[in-house]
Amino acid sequence: MPENPFYLQLRDRLVTLIETGELPPASRLPGERLLAERFATTRVTLRQALTQLESEGLIHRRNRRGWFVSPRRVEYSPNHDQSFDQYVSAQGRHPQTEVLDVRRQPATAEAAQALGIACGQVTLHVKRRRYIDGRAVLLERIWLRDDLLPGLAEGDFSTSLWQRLWEEYGLVLARKSLRLYPTALTGDEAEALGVHSGCAGLCVTRVTHDREGRALEYDEDYWLHDAICLRVEVAM
Amino acid sequence: MPENPFYLQLRDRLVTLIETGELPPASRLPGERLLAERFATTRVTLRQALTQLESEGLIHRRNRRGWFVSPRRVEYSPNHDQSFDQYVSAQGRHPQTEVLDVRRQPATAEAAQALGIACGQVTLHVKRRRYIDGRAVLLERIWLRDDLLPGLAEGDFSTSLWQRLWEEYGLVLARKSLRLYPTALTGDEAEALGVHSGCAGLCVTRVTHDREGRALEYDEDYWLHDAICLRVEVAM
Repeated sequence: MPENPFYLQLRDRLVTLIETGELPPASRLPGERLLAERFATTRVTLRQALTQLESEGLIHRRNRRGWFVSPRRVEYSPNHDQSFDQYVSAQGRHPQTEVLDVRRQPATAEAAQALGIACGQVTLHVKRRRYIDGRAVLLERIWLRDDLLPGLAEGDFSTSLWQRLWEEYGLVLARKSLRLYPTALTGDEAEALGVHSGCAGLCVTRVTHDREGRALEYDEDYWLHDAICLRVEVAM
Repeated sequence: MPENPFYLQLRDRLVTLIETGELPPASRLPGERLLAERFATTRVTLRQALTQLESEGLIHRRNRRGWFVSPRRVEYSPNHDQSFDQYVSAQGRHPQTEVLDVRRQPATAEAAQALGIACGQVTLHVKRRRYIDGRAVLLERIWLRDDLLPGLAEGDFSTSLWQRLWEEYGLVLARKSLRLYPTALTGDEAEALGVHSGCAGLCVTRVTHDREGRALEYDEDYWLHDAICLRVEVAM
């Protein structure tokens, strides 16, 4: 078998440093010049190894602050009826939500189809950025049937939406339909999460129905690729 | 708002060509020199636009054959008890399976944990490459408790495994536990799927239990990022 190219050998040595805890989760890597010296290599080759580790989700860049070891992925189980705050906290991590925008506007084609309404019908659109341990990991776009939920726009969107729907409208979540696919983060999403356009991500869309079978909410979640792991249990 | 950089404008124009069907799914793009001429740009800028479209999963490269529009993603619903052949065919696509390796060997740490056996215990390991419409999209690594399934190694692994377990051993699949996360395809996986190391992918692991609660099979599926979309239905 031919020997691996040097940048992949270098990648393996960096993985060892991460796995043995010499570089613990969330720690900052030494500067690139120092690392290149330590491994007796060029900045170009070192960069190749770091980029490889980045695409594997083991390290990530922060604007002007260098490279960091990526924290463990948070697990999300769509089978469980847990809010973002609940499942992040349950894993010993710190959740935070920032409401970026709340406004009534025509639904996009995808949102209209998901909600079963006419394309262009006005819905309540909410944009939120969510953090785990201070790191922005998720941009969430929500479209809500506020024609069925009068006064919804006036409330607080920094906490669980379905808890509000239960408390304020007596609505019970009955069924969720999820789609998941790897994608690149571009434009708005990339900017909101502080990554370059084209960075790997995971898109999770979700339509939520109440007990009367009405699709009340459509959600598009854009996750940093290295922050999330989904767990699905299926009984046959 | 500042104008988008030129490569992103170029990306938008290429997306229009794809969406209007001027460049239909699975078609080959004109050569890079021709494209650069058509859009009056340099090869470098054109490459930036193409790479962006590649990371979004809209186009992909084939070794020495240039750029192709990516076919529609195939949908996989873990809730449904369908084999790869079944769900790919049901979507009007052509599935194919190539068995790359079948051998008894010690389980990896992940496989042993998933199967609830001692690390290093010998299992039957099967490696398969799966195709949709002739494109290699999935590398599958399977670990099987063949100590509980005598004679398993001698059969055919190019078809549905659980159909064999049912027909030959009377076993019924009862529960599946899946984990999904975006990852980079590296080493073996990248090579088997004909992409460069570091290319975006999706890893889906699956533990399958029979009716007696025994974990008989552990699976690691490595998908090309642009080939797959998962659909999960959850009733609360």
